[in-house]
Amino acid sequence: MSQRPYAHPPLSPLPTLAPLTPVAPDIVSLRDHEREARQHLDEARWAYLCGGAADERTVTDNQRAWQELRLQPRVLQHLRQGHTRLELLGRTLAHPLLVAPMAYQRLAHPDGELAMALAAAAQQTGLILSTQASVYLEHVAAVVQQMRDDTAPASASTPSIHTPLWFQLYMQPRWDDTLALIDRAQAAGFEALVLTVDAPVQGVRDRERRTGFTLPLDVAAVNLPPPTPSPEPPNAWTGVLRHAPTWQDIADLLRQLEQPSTHRRLPVLLKGILHPDDARRARDVGAAGVIVSNHGGRTLDTALPTAWALPAIAQAVGADLAVLVDGGLRRGTDVFKALALGADAVLIGRPCLHGLAHAGAAGVAHVLRLLRDELDAAMALCGCATLADIHIDRIFQKIE
Amino acid sequence: MSQRPYAHPPLSPLPTLAPLTPVAPDIVSLRDHEREARQHLDEARWAYLCGGAADERTVTDNQRAWQELRLQPRVLQHLRQGHTRLELLGRTLAHPLLVAPMAYQRLAHPDGELAMALAAAAQQTGLILSTQASVYLEHVAAVVQQMRDDTAPASASTPSIHTPLWFQLYMQPRWDDTLALIDRAQAAGFEALVLTVDAPVQGVRDRERRTGFTLPLDVAAVNLPPPTPSPEPPNAWTGVLRHAPTWQDIADLLRQLEQPSTHRRLPVLLKGILHPDDARRARDVGAAGVIVSNHGGRTLDTALPTAWALPAIAQAVGADLAVLVDGGLRRGTDVFKALALGADAVLIGRPCLHGLAHAGAAGVAHVLRLLRDELDAAMALCGCATLADIHIDRIFQKIE
Amino acid sequence: MSQRPYAHPPLSPLPTLAPLTPVAPDIVSLRDHEREARQHLDEARWAYLCGGAADERTVTDNQRAWQELRLQPRVLQHLRQGHTRLELLGRTLAHPLLVAPMAYQRLAHPDGELAMALAAAAQQTGLILSTQASVYLEHVAAVVQQMRDDTAPASASTPSIHTPLWFQLYMQPRWDDTLALIDRAQAAGFEALVLTVDAPVQGVRDRERRTGFTLPLDVAAVNLPPPTPSPEPPNAWTGVLRHAPTWQDIADLLRQLEQPSTHRRLPVLLKGILHPDDARRARDVGAAGVIVSNHGGRTLDTALPTAWALPAIAQAVGADLAVLVDGGLRRGTDVFKALALGADAVLIGRPCLHGLAHAGAAGVAHVLRLLRDELDAAMALCGCATLADIHIDRIFQKIE
Amino acid sequence: MSQRPYAHPPLSPLPTLAPLTPVAPDIVSLRDHEREARQHLDEARWAYLCGGAADERTVTDNQRAWQELRLQPRVLQHLRQGHTRLELLGRTLAHPLLVAPMAYQRLAHPDGELAMALAAAAQQTGLILSTQASVYLEHVAAVVQQMRDDTAPASASTPSIHTPLWFQLYMQPRWDDTLALIDRAQAAGFEALVLTVDAPVQGVRDRERRTGFTLPLDVAAVNLPPPTPSPEPPNAWTGVLRHAPTWQDIADLLRQLEQPSTHRRLPVLLKGILHPDDARRARDVGAAGVIVSNHGGRTLDTALPTAWALPAIAQAVGADLAVLVDGGLRRGTDVFKALALGADAVLIGRPCLHGLAHAGAAGVAHVLRLLRDELDAAMALCGCATLADIHIDRIFQKIE
Repeated sequence: MSQRPYAHPPLSPLPTLAPLTPVAPDIVSLRDHEREARQHLDEARWAYLCGGAADERTVTDNQRAWQELRLQPRVLQHLRQGHTRLELLGRTLAHPLLVAPMAYQRLAHPDGELAMALAAAAQQTGLILSTQASVYLEHVAAVVQQMRDDTAPASASTPSIHTPLWFQLYMQPRWDDTLALIDRAQAAGFEALVLTVDAPVQGVRDRERRTGFTLPLDVAAVNLPPPTPSPEPPNAWTGVLRHAPTWQDIADLLRQLEQPSTHRRLPVLLKGILHPDDARRARDVGAAGVIVSNHGGRTLDTALPTAWALPAIAQAVGADLAVLVDGGLRRGTDVFKALALGADAVLIGRPCLHGLAHAGAAGVAHVLRLLRDELDAAMALCGCATLADIHIDRIFQKIE
Repeated sequence: MSQRPYAHPPLSPLPTLAPLTPVAPDIVSLRDHEREARQHLDEARWAYLCGGAADERTVTDNQRAWQELRLQPRVLQHLRQGHTRLELLGRTLAHPLLVAPMAYQRLAHPDGELAMALAAAAQQTGLILSTQASVYLEHVAAVVQQMRDDTAPASASTPSIHTPLWFQLYMQPRWDDTLALIDRAQAAGFEALVLTVDAPVQGVRDRERRTGFTLPLDVAAVNLPPPTPSPEPPNAWTGVLRHAPTWQDIADLLRQLEQPSTHRRLPVLLKGILHPDDARRARDVGAAGVIVSNHGGRTLDTALPTAWALPAIAQAVGADLAVLVDGGLRRGTDVFKALALGADAVLIGRPCLHGLAHAGAAGVAHVLRLLRDELDAAMALCGCATLADIHIDRIFQKIE
Repeated sequence: MSQRPYAHPPLSPLPTLAPLTPVAPDIVSLRDHEREARQHLDEARWAYLCGGAADERTVTDNQRAWQELRLQPRVLQHLRQGHTRLELLGRTLAHPLLVAPMAYQRLAHPDGELAMALAAAAQQTGLILSTQASVYLEHVAAVVQQMRDDTAPASASTPSIHTPLWFQLYMQPRWDDTLALIDRAQAAGFEALVLTVDAPVQGVRDRERRTGFTLPLDVAAVNLPPPTPSPEPPNAWTGVLRHAPTWQDIADLLRQLEQPSTHRRLPVLLKGILHPDDARRARDVGAAGVIVSNHGGRTLDTALPTAWALPAIAQAVGADLAVLVDGGLRRGTDVFKALALGADAVLIGRPCLHGLAHAGAAGVAHVLRLLRDELDAAMALCGCATLADIHIDRIFQKIE
Repeated sequence: MSQRPYAHPPLSPLPTLAPLTPVAPDIVSLRDHEREARQHLDEARWAYLCGGAADERTVTDNQRAWQELRLQPRVLQHLRQGHTRLELLGRTLAHPLLVAPMAYQRLAHPDGELAMALAAAAQQTGLILSTQASVYLEHVAAVVQQMRDDTAPASASTPSIHTPLWFQLYMQPRWDDTLALIDRAQAAGFEALVLTVDAPVQGVRDRERRTGFTLPLDVAAVNLPPPTPSPEPPNAWTGVLRHAPTWQDIADLLRQLEQPSTHRRLPVLLKGILHPDDARRARDVGAAGVIVSNHGGRTLDTALPTAWALPAIAQAVGADLAVLVDGGLRRGTDVFKALALGADAVLIGRPCLHGLAHAGAAGVAHVLRLLRDELDAAMALCGCATLADIHIDRIFQKIE
């Protein structure tokens, strides 16, 4: 800890984004975007960006678990003046979607995270930037702020909608590097921290390894110190796991963030919670929220789908904490179901990458717009005028 | 409401129907009709007429849910003089099948709803005409009445069988338009109203959108005022949902229909009920019946299959109201199961369109005849001589 | 009943059977026989002989239901001197397999039921001859008796094994025709009657109808009076169902067979029972046994698989009556499971036709030998030296 | 028993092993090894080595049963200094994997069991040699001992890791042959006996029989007396089952091994236990452990998968005996789940053969290394630093 934290080189100016690409008219669903993206990425990039761990059963399970929930609509409800607004961490959001943190987005498109941020902000969609972003975090913040300014309501009569900007974080091997990253993100305008806790080691990424994927020279985690080569350890226990964070480390970090003397005041959400006891512990150490996630099926294959984990966690801590969920959401009805099972909001990951890969910012915006429209339709068809009307009773419980 | 209701232009004379087309001898089931119809319709018409919402999971679920119920027959019952007659809304019907309301049937065949009505009446099958019919409702009524006259029993000894003719209705944005439609349908001889309550917005019709379907110039909702172009609203909530009917609207309408002073006396069924509490509410506002339906999977994908929703609804209101069901019925055994789960009668939708598409009225009649014969066989093989013998005990309950 | 029963024409002499065809060495299971038979039969004969009702879901279910039961073996049991012998209707059988009654076997092979009988008797397998046999019942009895004589044990020390010969019967429209058939079967040496009670009407035989199957000129139900053409009735209720037998008819028949004055003394089994209450009623009217059957899925599609129906029926009447089962048994483990669920013996149908179709008597004998050997292996591997050791505890009950 | 036991011919010197073959870089999982092996073996060898009984449903079930268990990880546990060591039969093992006994490994590779032993020992993986090994058991023991010496820790500070070497045994028809084999194995350095108790007869090996597999001339069970030809018995009961061992035989053998006067002191595990009562009986007759196994689905098809049988057995005897399991384990997560359900260790069978078939000792070592690494990752990702942390609570229990 006595080492000096990593000092970042001066930033280059904000790059110019590519002109908008139109989205083909027969792309009308997130699966259409996926199909299209598959054409635009080589095998290795596809494997890295969209593949999962081992046999990719959790990847499949995640999607299927939402699909297999059946909706039981109510009819003739009062739907006029419905909307999708919600309160989250003290702000009013336009809708319950956020873009999930995903590493190295310049693998999908030259503009990478900048195009992603632009599209998200245009759709009033919160963005969670990955620690392993391939563009400078300050540039992302600038793009989001610019779009917020452009879309600010003309009059004070409209509710004051906020588009969130959060920073995803892995605890760094060196404590001071972690704090330096937090300081830098806060300074750039990021408003919350998302600590990923479900990946003490990499998953068994077979698809990726089969293609021999390595990062190309022009894509890197530009916000992190360059990796220091070290002798290959005999196994995981003596390798990366030496640095795996524990509940104690989280408690220490949160205590440090809470101290009155510190200028660090960002709320922290723990991402990767799958057990209600871990959710309770997150609450007890002072987290502002949990994200129910299995890392999109990229780490532990055959981990339970998040739709199965969510209800018990929402029941355990939903009254005290923000509960978000990701993994396999591909339809407005999936989002509706997540809210019915107790989530406050959801993260959308791979589908945004798909849009990005084949059509840049326009693709991402299209993906988010589709989901928003589908959510509107699902709410109306289930008889829910606001998110508060979405209760568990809209999920059919089959009595066998 | 002060605007004058839409005044309909004078009707043209009843068109001449095309000569009957024979049905190929290897078409022996509803699925054969579907396969054949698929050859006769282009991608876009098929998508509109036969497609469903989103991933079409509810379309598939509807069919599968009936199939997966297993029958447990009883043997050596007294079957002589069995029959399929039933009482429904005060009339005696030959059998428990009705043709479901479906829009724009001239997309499937030039004679559209006229051929459908002719075939239905020839098979003593009730017909529910869609608000969005592509022929004049008066013409349909004339065709049905003509066939009723032709098939009237010669002597008074035969039970007096009636072939129902009902009108399906969406609440129109303008109240007086709704009343004017009702008056016109009643004047033409329609005997009941089917209010569709499960489609406050259109579903996410991906298949349709992918093909770029639009109505051809020669097919229109000829019984409705022409649509008035209006500026595209930013989303559903400020668009169509401004006019979405509520329970209050239904109560108002039913009260109006009940007043002694009014000449309007048509019984009303609510179509699109999936929850027993909504069925109870339908009863409480004075509906004559409910139709358990998820709109054939065309609106809310992953809505529960109707076979799952039916039993609780039949139990809740079956003693008080007519309970009908539609969605995915493709076999006489499916119809038998619907009755065993508590339905009084069933609606058949897409299969009639399939017959219509490839063989006009003869195709529809063949479809209905197949179902009637299959129902006869299912009853005999399960040991039921009349519909009253069809109890829930014929559905096998597996004790795991 | 005043009409004279049908008087049968004099029999022709017993025909000479075709020479034995060897079975190919890569045919090692019943499914291999099925594949081979498929090559030897045209579409229409295959449809008639091996097809099922409607979508053939019960055909598939029957097989799957046995397969999905999991065995939980016990080890190190005393297996020396094990055997498969059983007592059934007062006789000692070599093993618990019988050939199911199947109509018109000459459709599969020129020697038809004669080859089937020869093979069955050679494998000490009981035979149930169909009313609709395409050879004279007396000829079948002669073939069986000849084989019994040929394989009689040389000394009295071997247990006296008997190979049963039963006659399957549909109640005929005319009572005296029924009695005449029974008399004739008894005179020929048949030892029990199998009354089929699950087919008051034909099933919805789509596959058959698609191929336009009709009986060829040289295949007929030679033991029955020729069908008298009659005007096509408007539907099933006024057609065949006029003659559908009832419990009263069965009771009358059994009473007649029981009278001390009568020379008719054949025990009667009811075939097609799927409900325990019907099994109880069969017992109460005096049946000697029931055969749990859904007619091989040829009549009512989506009827429950027999493996699901068997346990409750065996529990209801297994102590009082012989309980047999058929439908979808394709492996020695399937037979083992049927016995574990309470059956005394099983009927094998289509697999025998498969063997017959491609290799005549040798094919049938091979099928039966495979099943016998597989049953031996299943018993030994589950730790059962005799049929009496096969209890329900060998079926794994998953505690979810 | 008065016959003299089989006297083995003098051993030839230890053969030289083939040079190591590299494993292709796109082979990153056990399924990749399987695919590769499939290319290297002809149909008949593949059928014998990797096929299963009958329809191979248990082969498939075994794998699927592990896959369908869902993991529910815990996060932020203390993982530093984790490891996979365990105590088994009084020794410390590096990890909970052993190579299962498999016959005739020279069918897969000319070096057969010698290459297998070399690779196993190199990976500190215990080896169970089959009675039907195709190389001399003394040679296998020599290879293992050599590798143990080569990898012995330089200093006393490292925990003293032992690589087990066990001998699998079928009871021989002649008692003295059984004892002679045990003596010989013990003399060679084998440390435990694995008595296979689930194969009193061969399974119904359809795939093998279809290919007409027979042992080639250069592969034989060199540690057994040559088979004495005997007249083919009429069926299993009078054939091999005459010699099928019983609980009494096991008790006799174990008593003999326990006598203070005897030099035979090897602990005995019974392999092929699937019922908790049989596990209790194994304990009561003095076994040191049980191996939950269905013989890899090679004997009784539709036997329950081992993942279903394990929990009740572990609960019944896990406190008293070593409980091992095999069948269908293909992933580190599968191994993790087996431990969570109560196993102390697992046996890996076919995957080792796959590695052997296409890349000899290097292939086997690669298979074992993959599994070890995957187990490390699964433990870390589930929040378990040692095997003792792996509890049943990591298996998600869905509340339906």
